[in-house]
Amino acid sequence: MRTVLTAITSGLLLLASPSAHAQQAPASPAESDPATLGWMEGSPPPPEKRVLFRDGGHLQFPKTRWAFAHLRELMPTAVIARGGERVSALPKALRTDLDSVTFTPLGRSGTMTWSQAFEDVYGDAVLVLHKGRIVYERYSGVMKPDQPHIAFSVTKSYFGTLAEILIAEGKIDEQAPVSRYVPELASSGFGDATVRQVLDMTTGIAFSEDYTDPNADIARFSLAVGAVPAPRGYTGPLSAYDYLLTIAKKGSHGEGFTYRSANTEVIGWIIARVTGKRAHEVMSERIWSQIGAEHDGAILVDSAGAPFTAGGLNLTLRDMARFGETMRLGGRFNGRQVVPASVIAKIREGAGKADFAKAGYRTLPGWSYKSQWWVSHNAHGAYMARGIHGQAIYIDPAAEMVIARFASNPQASNVRFDDISLPAYHAVAERLMAKR
Amino acid sequence: MRTVLTAITSGLLLLASPSAHAQQAPASPAESDPATLGWMEGSPPPPEKRVLFRDGGHLQFPKTRWAFAHLRELMPTAVIARGGERVSALPKALRTDLDSVTFTPLGRSGTMTWSQAFEDVYGDAVLVLHKGRIVYERYSGVMKPDQPHIAFSVTKSYFGTLAEILIAEGKIDEQAPVSRYVPELASSGFGDATVRQVLDMTTGIAFSEDYTDPNADIARFSLAVGAVPAPRGYTGPLSAYDYLLTIAKKGSHGEGFTYRSANTEVIGWIIARVTGKRAHEVMSERIWSQIGAEHDGAILVDSAGAPFTAGGLNLTLRDMARFGETMRLGGRFNGRQVVPASVIAKIREGAGKADFAKAGYRTLPGWSYKSQWWVSHNAHGAYMARGIHGQAIYIDPAAEMVIARFASNPQASNVRFDDISLPAYHAVAERLMAKR
Repeated sequence: MRTVLTAITSGLLLLASPSAHAQQAPASPAESDPATLGWMEGSPPPPEKRVLFRDGGHLQFPKTRWAFAHLRELMPTAVIARGGERVSALPKALRTDLDSVTFTPLGRSGTMTWSQAFEDVYGDAVLVLHKGRIVYERYSGVMKPDQPHIAFSVTKSYFGTLAEILIAEGKIDEQAPVSRYVPELASSGFGDATVRQVLDMTTGIAFSEDYTDPNADIARFSLAVGAVPAPRGYTGPLSAYDYLLTIAKKGSHGEGFTYRSANTEVIGWIIARVTGKRAHEVMSERIWSQIGAEHDGAILVDSAGAPFTAGGLNLTLRDMARFGETMRLGGRFNGRQVVPASVIAKIREGAGKADFAKAGYRTLPGWSYKSQWWVSHNAHGAYMARGIHGQAIYIDPAAEMVIARFASNPQASNVRFDDISLPAYHAVAERLMAKR
Repeated sequence: MRTVLTAITSGLLLLASPSAHAQQAPASPAESDPATLGWMEGSPPPPEKRVLFRDGGHLQFPKTRWAFAHLRELMPTAVIARGGERVSALPKALRTDLDSVTFTPLGRSGTMTWSQAFEDVYGDAVLVLHKGRIVYERYSGVMKPDQPHIAFSVTKSYFGTLAEILIAEGKIDEQAPVSRYVPELASSGFGDATVRQVLDMTTGIAFSEDYTDPNADIARFSLAVGAVPAPRGYTGPLSAYDYLLTIAKKGSHGEGFTYRSANTEVIGWIIARVTGKRAHEVMSERIWSQIGAEHDGAILVDSAGAPFTAGGLNLTLRDMARFGETMRLGGRFNGRQVVPASVIAKIREGAGKADFAKAGYRTLPGWSYKSQWWVSHNAHGAYMARGIHGQAIYIDPAAEMVIARFASNPQASNVRFDDISLPAYHAVAERLMAKR
């Protein structure tokens, strides 16, 4: 048991290592550039340059700056197949003026440029679509257009949208208890939660997702789905299915938003139950193969074959932008209605701001969380998909803009760099809306 | 040490299990249908229906009939990116008469049909191109057009062709000793072999690839590249690079053909050294992104990031057919010269039949092995890529025909079912050549 606990702690420390050593400033973006550091370069790479799963190196900064672009080389993944058809067009209309767009970071004096912001957040790749055209596209480190990057919890927004499609079609009743679709969960903390509560993360369950807390449940969850190496003697759950059954209730459902990845895994399970297929297979059929993706997606899978719906999607930058553009256009993209317009409207509407405020996100005042999307309720109606370490889709309907970003910030929580990222996104939107 | 040896033996037994129990007849094609058996079906799949890497189930028949279509879900893979451009056309002109094409299996009395042959060899998917059009396409079990399948040693022919491209460009000297490109191999059995000898597998090295022999080196190799689970206490090589250094010389180079996968791994290493990239990255640039592939490829990688060039390619049937068609058309496909015509001509010419005859393949009289391709020297000029358990690309230039096939035969060696497959291919070719 001691072995197991040590391992869980060490697994968590892997996830949380940058914060656990917050006293030491991490290497700067330039110092940690993965191309400069030469991770996994050479044939063979020298031992000190190897990034391994078995020692947890894949989650240790600055190795993460290589690993996030190569996670599928370290862990098993399932294919999310693109359709066999043509690639949808993303015409280029590059604007050289965006690099110098200036903004003031939240709570700071002095200004920064868009270009500086990208570097400062340890950006790996970023693309800006304006009216469907690529006006900005940048890759750094080991990233390039055809290199997939882990999206972490941006994955949640894909599966939240997929669940909403099935709700719109009447295949899932959002007011039904989770246990109607997954009877096994009846005796878990999710037993009397509704699908709606799980989708909006207002469940009251015993699951801590503090990436700076070495005792948080996210570590045990990571072990169960195989995101960190299982230690010798580990006898705990070896799949998301088994893990979810162990989650107890804590508090009441529907009383406030608390960000807990376990909810998304329940969504994936429900999708599997109502379709008779694995959730990522449904993702391929309903979204990936419909939007003219350039590349197949790759999603981490556990030993029971379940996709890691809370954070396991690996994909290219342009394909992530295509999904954002599909959302921006009310679900109509690539010549077809991929997502019902009603679903997009429902997501954009958001959920209860008061519920959201209880979570106390310093950088997200007045926001809400709906169907696995973060809704700003700002004047532009912007909403986001967000993943740890800086992954993002930022959709600004008023500016007709979509931003897709990959990053490998040493900090997990986006709140640590929202003060730069959010005003940077908004400033680019304002520039794109201005008459030239 | 005992632990290690036991593990190696058990690893080999995994690879060889069907033959090791040859006395027991394996389940029939129908009895072993993976869709009927329901491997990994359900959320979660029941314990007895799971296919796991950690117990070697991925290589145990009949689980193989699911696993060969899902190996990337059990092991890490690197992406072989398709280009961002359009998918190349494979127009359909289906012919219903091919199912009833009749032939006589080698050394038997009585006839079989093409359709029966597919079932009899435990076929998973097969596609016939005639003059560039799909005249036959069939999927069984868990296979479908967008599902990747392991190609096993068909992979070799891809990398052999890639090496020949680099030879044609003067980047590799085929007469140079291997050690010119990989000095580390100087003290191994490969030290004084030429690139040509490695490409044509005429090296004299101590490496046994008998899949029915529990002591063969292929088991140790499989452990090193991570194709079978490493046992507790295993301290042997953990990458192809490290493993190749341990191979001793045995006999002389250039005196005869012996099929040994280690040679292909040396080819992959040379490609990496002359290009400064990993071999599968070069594959993406030079072939995959040029032929209008529908899907990304996925290749098994070891812990040093090396692609398993001898057998790790997972891909869709149509994409495998596209490569075959590229070869048939003298390297020109998708509006560009992907492979120099001289390379195709060189491969088709074959190598020494006397050298090949020494290997004693009962079903391949008069054949030769050139640049990782099997050349029939028959009247049609047919040549093949071949992978264990029935993977194949069969190119018949005279019939303007390409066949791509995936299978999960309980026997590893193709020789065990060549008596059906080879006359079946030829009979379809004859039918396609006949006036209608």
